[in-house]
Amino acid sequence: MDYKFANRVQNLNPSAIREILKFTADPEVISLSAGNPAPEAFPVKDIAEISARVLAQRPFDALQYGTTEGYGPLRRRITDYMQKKHNIVREFDNILITSGAQQVVELAAKALCNPNDVVICEAPSFIGSLNSFRSLGSRLVGVPIQDDGMDINALESALKSNPNTKIIYTIPNFQNPSGITMSLEKRHMLYELARLYDVVIVEDNPYGDLRFEGEHIKAVKAFDEDGHVVYGGSFSKVLSPGIRVGYAIAHKTLLQKMTVCKQGEDVHTTMWSQIICDEYMGGCDFEAHLNDLRDIYRKKAKLMLSLIEEHLVPHGITYAPTQGGLFVWCRLPDGVDMPSFCKRAIIDYKVAVVPGNAFLVDENQPCQNFRLNFSTPTDDAMRKGVAKLGELAKEVIK
Amino acid sequence: MDYKFANRVQNLNPSAIREILKFTADPEVISLSAGNPAPEAFPVKDIAEISARVLAQRPFDALQYGTTEGYGPLRRRITDYMQKKHNIVREFDNILITSGAQQVVELAAKALCNPNDVVICEAPSFIGSLNSFRSLGSRLVGVPIQDDGMDINALESALKSNPNTKIIYTIPNFQNPSGITMSLEKRHMLYELARLYDVVIVEDNPYGDLRFEGEHIKAVKAFDEDGHVVYGGSFSKVLSPGIRVGYAIAHKTLLQKMTVCKQGEDVHTTMWSQIICDEYMGGCDFEAHLNDLRDIYRKKAKLMLSLIEEHLVPHGITYAPTQGGLFVWCRLPDGVDMPSFCKRAIIDYKVAVVPGNAFLVDENQPCQNFRLNFSTPTDDAMRKGVAKLGELAKEVIK
Repeated sequence: MDYKFANRVQNLNPSAIREILKFTADPEVISLSAGNPAPEAFPVKDIAEISARVLAQRPFDALQYGTTEGYGPLRRRITDYMQKKHNIVREFDNILITSGAQQVVELAAKALCNPNDVVICEAPSFIGSLNSFRSLGSRLVGVPIQDDGMDINALESALKSNPNTKIIYTIPNFQNPSGITMSLEKRHMLYELARLYDVVIVEDNPYGDLRFEGEHIKAVKAFDEDGHVVYGGSFSKVLSPGIRVGYAIAHKTLLQKMTVCKQGEDVHTTMWSQIICDEYMGGCDFEAHLNDLRDIYRKKAKLMLSLIEEHLVPHGITYAPTQGGLFVWCRLPDGVDMPSFCKRAIIDYKVAVVPGNAFLVDENQPCQNFRLNFSTPTDDAMRKGVAKLGELAKEVIK
Repeated sequence: MDYKFANRVQNLNPSAIREILKFTADPEVISLSAGNPAPEAFPVKDIAEISARVLAQRPFDALQYGTTEGYGPLRRRITDYMQKKHNIVREFDNILITSGAQQVVELAAKALCNPNDVVICEAPSFIGSLNSFRSLGSRLVGVPIQDDGMDINALESALKSNPNTKIIYTIPNFQNPSGITMSLEKRHMLYELARLYDVVIVEDNPYGDLRFEGEHIKAVKAFDEDGHVVYGGSFSKVLSPGIRVGYAIAHKTLLQKMTVCKQGEDVHTTMWSQIICDEYMGGCDFEAHLNDLRDIYRKKAKLMLSLIEEHLVPHGITYAPTQGGLFVWCRLPDGVDMPSFCKRAIIDYKVAVVPGNAFLVDENQPCQNFRLNFSTPTDDAMRKGVAKLGELAKEVIK
């Protein structure tokens, strides 16, 4: 059968990252291309205990249908936590539990964007979200990212020249793929621009709790006094990604549409997962756990950055400031062919990294960057992997 | 903020069923309006044992990210099972694990339907799927359902007059809400029409294993020799709905697009849930469990039908043939106002039923039906509830 696909998915293909991940099935390949939390970061014992208790004492809470809005106790607990800790969740807001923060992005776009409406995103940005916007027929406009976040002048130009912009999409903390964090000043300017041009900001914050250096910067949502910001939170990096729990905090009018859309997608998020999150936040020391995570990632990031300094910087490779999250964004000197560098890394040196153009609105645009991950590989794998990249750099960068 | 919603969601509102469910929070109300599996149908002990074993022996399989396609062992196990038992999954097919069968419907529409493309559905049909199609901007065309399934002549007329039809959506077994099953002859004609008009059939089969009477009828997908059928299966009614696991079996070309769309929705389905399904099918006696379920529902359905015969039929209320599933579709005599009957049932008699128009393409069309559920209420609740409906019928039907 010759399928007549919807226009919006005609050119939608499996991401370049997935193609690279195929190579990483080879046990000889050192993968610096993943985005998985460190295995030692999972509170396995606590989760097993909670699960056993729930399935013994109140199995139907975990196994029966739930409401689309999410498990009541978890909704109340996150609301309380976010209000106290982050000054988020105003009177006009409500909360929806989602199947990962990816779904927050998708539901916001589904509720707001007609085909060909514009979504402004950081360039580079998270490929999963870009594909989510694409799958709904949105037109993506990229705004370059600087060391302190989105180029605000370029953002304003983009808003001016695209009056059909519905969403500005940002990952303000330790952005994927760049690791860059948006400054407080820029967050404020971003919010003011969203008000001025009457567009919605989707603030995707999966990495915010993983700051291992520098000062916490308040969320864009904390500025929100009129419902311009949809905040997306996630348990993937702080508890477990396999359980698929995230949440949206947004104005109740917008959230109601997102809830109806979610009902048509997966009815509700896995109940067991939601209860695990609720009981973990309530019965375990969540703040101590977050501190442990920061210790793990600080140590791993320090090692990665020292290896980059040792093996890559001498060959003219630079990297973006990294104070949290899972990634370092490296840049090859001008004149070095980035795609061929990444290809040779995997084929000749058996080290997988992600070519930066995968994260652009148009993958065919020129790009000198590649992404390194420090959360998934062992220390030993990082040492070997970056040393090998250094050998390749020595070979190709004159 | 005055949100500019996408056209496709402008008129999308929480379903009428949800409004009724609000009344059922009142403990005095007897609910015959739900669609939940019977609590006694959950294999709680087995699930708890599997969960404990997995979290003790291989926690990272349950807690780390997985692939969008789904957990490999579960994909292979379902493929094998469906090939052997149902002659489904051809050479050209592939399988995608989804977050419930609802997601199969949504992903198929996302991959195939441009805004205003037509989806032909049974009238009445499952409101969750109708909302899913609506949320993507599809135009719904309803085809009346008869005691042996879709009116095939009306289907052909609909196909003729809507050349932009992309999908025919059907629930062939014990349809929600009507409980009706499509005959083998009609399944064959449906498949031939889909080939003739080159449209895709989405065969949604959550209730197929819950046949407690009559002979099994083979799936529409079992006819499929060229990729015209997307089959949606579900663990919600046979294991647990709270775990949110379903699956799509479809031609690999179509399934690849659906997979990229799923990646943008929730990345992958909860790993714990997928492992529970795999280990349950592999380590427990799945066929014996299905037989137990059929015993539970046969008993409950028999009671419900005998109560309908006793309390409702004498007042001229009729019902559709019911050989499986969770629902009985009742019909008030002409001239009786159905919406007001349902409203009085809940307000004056404290019995919740679902008014049939909620399941129509246009809720404002006339409708004489209401849906009764026999899987969720206790036997005692059914007895009291239907007796009260009988009192109301006596009062209003002259």
